[in-house]
Amino acid sequence: MHPLDPLTPTEIVNVAKLIKSHNQRTGVHFKNIVLIEPPKANLRKFLAAERRASVLPPAPARRASSLYYLRGTADLYFAIVNLDTSEIEDTEKLDSKYHGQADMDEVLVVRDKCLSHPKVVERIKEYGLPDDMVVVCDTWPYGRDSGDATQRLAQCFLYAKYRSHPGSNAYDNPLPFSPVVDYLTKELVDIIDLPIGSDHGVTPDVKYARHTPKEWHHDLQPQPKRTDLKPLTVHQPLGASFKVDRHLVTWQKWRFRLGFNWREGMVLHDVTYDGRELFHRLSLSEMFVPYGDPRTPYSRKSVFDVGDIGAGVAANNLALGCDCLGLIKYFSFTISDSNGNPVEKPNAICMHEIDDGIGWKHTDGATKQVSIVRSRVLVLQTIITVGNYEYIFMWHFDQAAALHYRIQATGILSTVPIAPGATVPWGINVNDGVMAPYHQHVFALRIDPAIDGDKNTFVEEDSIAMPFDADNPAGVGYITKQKQLTTSGYSEAQPSRVHKIINPSVINKASGKPVAYAIHSPQKQMLLAHLQSWHGKRAKYAAHPFWVTSYRDGELYAAGDYTYQSLPESGPGGAITQTRKGDLGSWAGRGDKVDNEDIVLWHSISLTHNPRPEDYPVMPCETMTVSLKPSGFFEQNPALDVPQSTQRANQSVLYEEQRNDNGEGACCGPKL
Amino acid sequence: MHPLDPLTPTEIVNVAKLIKSHNQRTGVHFKNIVLIEPPKANLRKFLAAERRASVLPPAPARRASSLYYLRGTADLYFAIVNLDTSEIEDTEKLDSKYHGQADMDEVLVVRDKCLSHPKVVERIKEYGLPDDMVVVCDTWPYGRDSGDATQRLAQCFLYAKYRSHPGSNAYDNPLPFSPVVDYLTKELVDIIDLPIGSDHGVTPDVKYARHTPKEWHHDLQPQPKRTDLKPLTVHQPLGASFKVDRHLVTWQKWRFRLGFNWREGMVLHDVTYDGRELFHRLSLSEMFVPYGDPRTPYSRKSVFDVGDIGAGVAANNLALGCDCLGLIKYFSFTISDSNGNPVEKPNAICMHEIDDGIGWKHTDGATKQVSIVRSRVLVLQTIITVGNYEYIFMWHFDQAAALHYRIQATGILSTVPIAPGATVPWGINVNDGVMAPYHQHVFALRIDPAIDGDKNTFVEEDSIAMPFDADNPAGVGYITKQKQLTTSGYSEAQPSRVHKIINPSVINKASGKPVAYAIHSPQKQMLLAHLQSWHGKRAKYAAHPFWVTSYRDGELYAAGDYTYQSLPESGPGGAITQTRKGDLGSWAGRGDKVDNEDIVLWHSISLTHNPRPEDYPVMPCETMTVSLKPSGFFEQNPALDVPQSTQRANQSVLYEEQRNDNGEGACCGPKL
Repeated sequence: MHPLDPLTPTEIVNVAKLIKSHNQRTGVHFKNIVLIEPPKANLRKFLAAERRASVLPPAPARRASSLYYLRGTADLYFAIVNLDTSEIEDTEKLDSKYHGQADMDEVLVVRDKCLSHPKVVERIKEYGLPDDMVVVCDTWPYGRDSGDATQRLAQCFLYAKYRSHPGSNAYDNPLPFSPVVDYLTKELVDIIDLPIGSDHGVTPDVKYARHTPKEWHHDLQPQPKRTDLKPLTVHQPLGASFKVDRHLVTWQKWRFRLGFNWREGMVLHDVTYDGRELFHRLSLSEMFVPYGDPRTPYSRKSVFDVGDIGAGVAANNLALGCDCLGLIKYFSFTISDSNGNPVEKPNAICMHEIDDGIGWKHTDGATKQVSIVRSRVLVLQTIITVGNYEYIFMWHFDQAAALHYRIQATGILSTVPIAPGATVPWGINVNDGVMAPYHQHVFALRIDPAIDGDKNTFVEEDSIAMPFDADNPAGVGYITKQKQLTTSGYSEAQPSRVHKIINPSVINKASGKPVAYAIHSPQKQMLLAHLQSWHGKRAKYAAHPFWVTSYRDGELYAAGDYTYQSLPESGPGGAITQTRKGDLGSWAGRGDKVDNEDIVLWHSISLTHNPRPEDYPVMPCETMTVSLKPSGFFEQNPALDVPQSTQRANQSVLYEEQRNDNGEGACCGPKL
Repeated sequence: MHPLDPLTPTEIVNVAKLIKSHNQRTGVHFKNIVLIEPPKANLRKFLAAERRASVLPPAPARRASSLYYLRGTADLYFAIVNLDTSEIEDTEKLDSKYHGQADMDEVLVVRDKCLSHPKVVERIKEYGLPDDMVVVCDTWPYGRDSGDATQRLAQCFLYAKYRSHPGSNAYDNPLPFSPVVDYLTKELVDIIDLPIGSDHGVTPDVKYARHTPKEWHHDLQPQPKRTDLKPLTVHQPLGASFKVDRHLVTWQKWRFRLGFNWREGMVLHDVTYDGRELFHRLSLSEMFVPYGDPRTPYSRKSVFDVGDIGAGVAANNLALGCDCLGLIKYFSFTISDSNGNPVEKPNAICMHEIDDGIGWKHTDGATKQVSIVRSRVLVLQTIITVGNYEYIFMWHFDQAAALHYRIQATGILSTVPIAPGATVPWGINVNDGVMAPYHQHVFALRIDPAIDGDKNTFVEEDSIAMPFDADNPAGVGYITKQKQLTTSGYSEAQPSRVHKIINPSVINKASGKPVAYAIHSPQKQMLLAHLQSWHGKRAKYAAHPFWVTSYRDGELYAAGDYTYQSLPESGPGGAITQTRKGDLGSWAGRGDKVDNEDIVLWHSISLTHNPRPEDYPVMPCETMTVSLKPSGFFEQNPALDVPQSTQRANQSVLYEEQRNDNGEGACCGPKL
């Protein structure tokens, strides 16, 4: 076993057994069982030795953590288990302000309880749904609209779908009331009338009115479909260019180790290029989706998709030829259920190569000599389904040592009911009676850099026009100015700014400056909720695009370890309990020295999603890309040794040669 | 012939013959011979009839224009020729402030004249180049550093390359002096000493010092090259999905007509989706590359790559399997030389389909029903070589009615000499004695929209947080506000802003709002040169990202028709002559009504390129994308009718099935 291998089914069973044996009286409801990565100091030593293929130091102890409730109680525990010795090393009872995430097992129970509750049944009946429809329930995190400690609640949003097809679009029929259910007791707490007009008022006696459905499922589309799309296939006749050894991947000078857990899903460890260290760990730390409808209960509507649900939990089982095209390597992993049983996540990550156009090209003007290489890219992809939405997360490795994090949003808009004729300024109508509110998706990319080693500095580099003066007589000169961040905190984006991670101790021989990787990411509108709102205080990371903290073990999640119905962990108004665990706001607020130190960068990537009708009933992928690019890390283009592209290898075909020009324009297949 | 077909070789010959016959005494030096597209009013009528396949109105007269000098003079003429009647309709002698672009024929003469001039030969000798090197000359536009009318000049930058290989990197040996040559007389005007230190001073007696070369050509790379890149091929066994009828292309509900000319290169005409009009004309209107080095003569260093050289002139002959992968359709065109002879530009545009990942996906949470389609994209690509640099321009058509303009920069940095030990704040050193100055590339994308017809309005749409008050008690609400641009002018980018083109007369039934297309483009640093500098005054368009003007025939080029050594055409300080032709600044400054009118949008796309050592000796593609996306144009996702993706069609292969796991990890080809 490698210290970073995700837990095996056997290990999960062993952890569960151990914790259950200590809690036999009450029983245990597991929230998660997950590998604790070794302390960085030990891990780094081990990884360095492994890379040098020298004698390995003893592997750090394999440890796991588990979050669990004593069954039937709100008593939440966090335990650390040593897997080598099969001992519980530590158990902590968490403050009652903290809640575990909603796990799939209890979600299913709560949904059934909600839909079968007599008051809900009665209310559905009053609404007058026709017999050909059935109601389904999405359990949303309750969110927060006060600082009171409360029980753990589910906000149930109800939708009706046609019984005639299992893929019928429930989100096309949002119901105008929303039950609230207690996760612990499974009792109905309230049924909230949803505002369906243009203001805050509610109209509880509204009845169902049928409209023409908009369906996402392929069976339910009008015929005929497009008939002019011809197959396009990708082949690698000599096999893949990558090599895989369990979770270790090597490809085109890149080497990295793949990780996976219930929460972050795909994680990259120990990323090197041509033997030089770049990133110790790369992960999706958090993701917050706040809605912009100011009315109760929508003003609470928000979800931390990573902390409240889990990108690993929600990972799709990817399918050959559909999710992935070409020659595909799949990785499967194991997470756990509420009973501590292993649950396989098959094909949760796929890996393959793509052709990404031209890598570089030049033609000598005088001699007409040409060099050209195509750009081959290694893609790691995971797709998660979180209720209505799908997210596609990808790492693209290119041959010139840049690493691109690509996020795509697809799936179905979260919809709410709206009365005929009503419109609102915080959303658009996408069908009769169906409104899609404005919202944001703010992703937190955690970047633990190791640019030629651990001691790095985060830098703002601005392009600045020189004054129009004697040193700049034509008024055209401009220069760059670097500001090193010396104290933990945040940094704003500017159109004139590039953020870089440098190693001040390693000087690039070509440029004479410290080696650096740049983070290229378009400037985006950050959190639109007021910073003093609960959204602002709970998702402090979403207020600024870049943050830098000093590294400490265990600081992985930008909005804190326990996001479900969370109270603020930091900042003004955050001093709510003495027991808070901390979040990015508190870590950044420590005022630690962060220049030439072991640092962590946090990049908040914001997508302001004001829906279009075209996003409904299912949304074409919306794509965002963040690039980590060498910027004075190498002395020259590191892809110069990529072999030239040739028709002999690439086997392309002229359009004219594939056509059967018999006057019918028919195709007869290419001459291969 | 279609009214938009580019000129044929025969037409070019006829135009040249006609103009020559009127100037037999002096002879003619042609700058260009190009189709004049018909007046929009006539053209629109014709195109609409053609699309309806009804009886065509008589095709508008085919006309061409030609810009030419009377040979051996600075007398510049612009003539209009009626090709149907073979008559010269109009001839205008242009004001002496205007110059023709540098054409390839005269560039070659000037280069030879420069390199063979005794003073230059002497100066090269004094510099002490070794015998194994040869000097080459790049002729740059002289630019401008005063308002004086001057003769047309070439700023010659000299470089030395090794004789041993025709692909040896000349830019690795920039010479420290720069001849200036008169294009008319071919006489040497000056030899300018280049500053090579950290300040404005020059050191004319500097001698050549050898350094280790950095080479871009594949023959000159150290061996071995990477050996682990396996072939990746793309096949369309049933043929391409597109149809081509001369310059008319149809694909996946898209229909458009391809144009090409010496200046803009690739042009799209009459772009529709599913029979609805979107864009009348899309083109690269201009491109300005100013350098940020404040020292003479670099403070003049700048080029309008479209107006001074021509994206069509510089278009590469694209090669199967190298520039283009898969099943490729090539388009070839004809331009003219300085004698009025036709010059073929073979394979100047390639067209093919790519798989672009997932188009959309959803999994029903309760029933696990899945719908998924992959995203097929139609790519039109042209590549231009402008001296040291290459640019790749692409249009990506997707199935969900979005159109993406993708620009990639590659090739070689423009380099200048620098003394040992010197550094400058406006550039970086990329090799011993070689400095790459900071610079910008500002592209002007001209968008002539026809969103459901000609009468459109340009809109700024901002996402705005609601005040934290009684209407927004939780402080989370946000709305959008639209501002319609009613008077021609410019508009700034903001992270909170989306720009849209709407048709106020056509209401989307789903949203209840006017149909719209949005322009998505990351906010960038605009021109860093002061607006009162010559760069700022000559490239006024580069100061702001978005502009809107009322449509007028002939207003195609953002920096004016004649950019070579241009004087400002508009704005403060622009009132230099009475005869100015106008540029975007003057058209936008007319104060025309632009709401619900036939308008033109101009989008200035800025790339601030502060070189990295990794960009040298040849630069991995730097990519920028602008997306034109329906945003309330359709009532729902227009790609719902794309057939589901299937393994049957996509023929993907599992990694494990392609591996020969005989302990050697060798590959034995996929089972197909």
